[in-house]
Amino acid sequence: MTAQDQSAYREFYRGRRVMITGGLGFIGSNLARLLVDLGADVLIIDSLIPEYGGNLFNISDIADRVRVNIADVRMQSTMGVLARGREVIFNLAGQVSHVDSMRDPYTDLEINCRAQLSILEACRMHCPGVRVVFAGTRQVYGRPDYLPVDERHLVRPADINGVNKAAGEYYHLLYNNVFDVRACSLRLTNVYGPRQLIKHNRQGFIGWFIRLALEDKEIEVFGDGQQIRDFVYVDDAADAFLRAGAADTCDGDVFNVGGCEPITHRDLTSMLVSEAGSGSVRFVDWPSDKKRIDIGSFYSDSSKFQRAVGWKPVVGLREGLRRTLAFYRQHMSHYVEPPS
Amino acid sequence: MTAQDQSAYREFYRGRRVMITGGLGFIGSNLARLLVDLGADVLIIDSLIPEYGGNLFNISDIADRVRVNIADVRMQSTMGVLARGREVIFNLAGQVSHVDSMRDPYTDLEINCRAQLSILEACRMHCPGVRVVFAGTRQVYGRPDYLPVDERHLVRPADINGVNKAAGEYYHLLYNNVFDVRACSLRLTNVYGPRQLIKHNRQGFIGWFIRLALEDKEIEVFGDGQQIRDFVYVDDAADAFLRAGAADTCDGDVFNVGGCEPITHRDLTSMLVSEAGSGSVRFVDWPSDKKRIDIGSFYSDSSKFQRAVGWKPVVGLREGLRRTLAFYRQHMSHYVEPPS
Repeated sequence: MTAQDQSAYREFYRGRRVMITGGLGFIGSNLARLLVDLGADVLIIDSLIPEYGGNLFNISDIADRVRVNIADVRMQSTMGVLARGREVIFNLAGQVSHVDSMRDPYTDLEINCRAQLSILEACRMHCPGVRVVFAGTRQVYGRPDYLPVDERHLVRPADINGVNKAAGEYYHLLYNNVFDVRACSLRLTNVYGPRQLIKHNRQGFIGWFIRLALEDKEIEVFGDGQQIRDFVYVDDAADAFLRAGAADTCDGDVFNVGGCEPITHRDLTSMLVSEAGSGSVRFVDWPSDKKRIDIGSFYSDSSKFQRAVGWKPVVGLREGLRRTLAFYRQHMSHYVEPPS
Repeated sequence: MTAQDQSAYREFYRGRRVMITGGLGFIGSNLARLLVDLGADVLIIDSLIPEYGGNLFNISDIADRVRVNIADVRMQSTMGVLARGREVIFNLAGQVSHVDSMRDPYTDLEINCRAQLSILEACRMHCPGVRVVFAGTRQVYGRPDYLPVDERHLVRPADINGVNKAAGEYYHLLYNNVFDVRACSLRLTNVYGPRQLIKHNRQGFIGWFIRLALEDKEIEVFGDGQQIRDFVYVDDAADAFLRAGAADTCDGDVFNVGGCEPITHRDLTSMLVSEAGSGSVRFVDWPSDKKRIDIGSFYSDSSKFQRAVGWKPVVGLREGLRRTLAFYRQHMSHYVEPPS
């Protein structure tokens, strides 16, 4: 791919009317920042549900260059109004806690399954021709049969969140194939970086580990720490959305978006504590509620997406952790609850 | 497998407290008939929604040997009361029209996806140790990559009904793996036989074709009629449920339940008209709403289920059609709407 091809997807967004559901959240707000720099007309939708990842501080530096509309994706009529005239929808709103999904499966269903249908129905009726890029998840694969996991691996979710995200993804593909809605899904692996929720530990472990390291606390790693994961720095994840949103080649398909350096929890936490210069690691037994939905080692093969749009992760894990630590050192007060 | 092994699963049901959701419907009522003959304590749950397949006539000959409770699986509290003390639940209640699911995706979602979660939550809370056999569908595979389709084929639904049935199935497997609910899914191919809904043509084509043949009308076959399907006679399908409900080997897994004689629509309708001695066949262009969700040829490989429990279909297609035609000839008035 030439340098010109490589930048064409960025040119695509100049003056483009885009919408980001979950746009005050972690990935959504970083994506919004890239989009305003590319000259896009950015509409951010977010419910700001207190326990979720939306945070107005996430866009404080670009607040005068985006439009923010507080709304819940579960309201189909509202989505119908908001989607009108949009050319690309980055559909990132979701309930992302696996543990919460097991305690309250219905809320997870309403947001990750039913609301997705509402968004797509809104597009079908009010916004034909729109392209939707869905934030899928590697969670749909469950405990893998082989590593690295590619898109030929069976979908076999190990928790409620995975089931509902799978259904939400299937809806997108179906609306692409049957109705006038172009859609694809990016199955994200563990994403990390600035602006991630770290006020509680129920939305993935990486952000929580970073907070503990910065607060010079003990990081608890379950089991022997030999479980492997791959990690994507948030700028790389946001770049994946940009590329998929500009590419006809992605319509109707699913793509893994994973990291380049699979690493054990043991080595990850060691690297993190070393980079932070604070915190420590302790290995503890698995809590039963987490063990029941654990999937063992996982890392994904993103070569299909690389072939389709030329994407690959460019920020290495150590560098990504450095940037993330620096961000939270500066802005920690905006990401933790005020002392009660 | 010895003759003794072969009958052990039938002995299992003597005095067994079973529940059949959708038990007034097509497969459910035929299963109920087998179960009462085996000495089971049968509780039938059905909503009798007018457009769906439930029909009190379906159990008129065994009405004094079963308990019927009219209820909707969408009501979790009701399901919690009814599930209490049941040892095996045959979970067949569903919205089964692919075409309706595209017109009204929310109702399909409520019944095939959300209600399944309700049933499983009811089991988890009120009925630990129960075994649930879920009526899955080959529809979850969508348009197949290869034939015959086995369980290693990707789940890639081609219509809303397929998405929601896939999610409902995933919930069952998840509750098996994580909670104290044993569950498996039988992915049924096209089932036919006595007691199927034939009052409208939105629940599969085979019952409708049988009605048209009996009424000496024209059967419209879409396209050139070369699309292949496999068919399972309802007694064979009911036997599959009996075997799965009695077998530890099925827990947590999915199994295709397909027919032994894949056949083109052309040959099927020819055989049907010949056996009925009435009706005719006409080849017509695909209607657009059906073409959009058509999956081409499909037939399934059921050898995994055969290995697990010894099941195989025993009623051939011609014999099955004969029995079905004879049934409707005798009872047609109970299966068509009264003239308005």
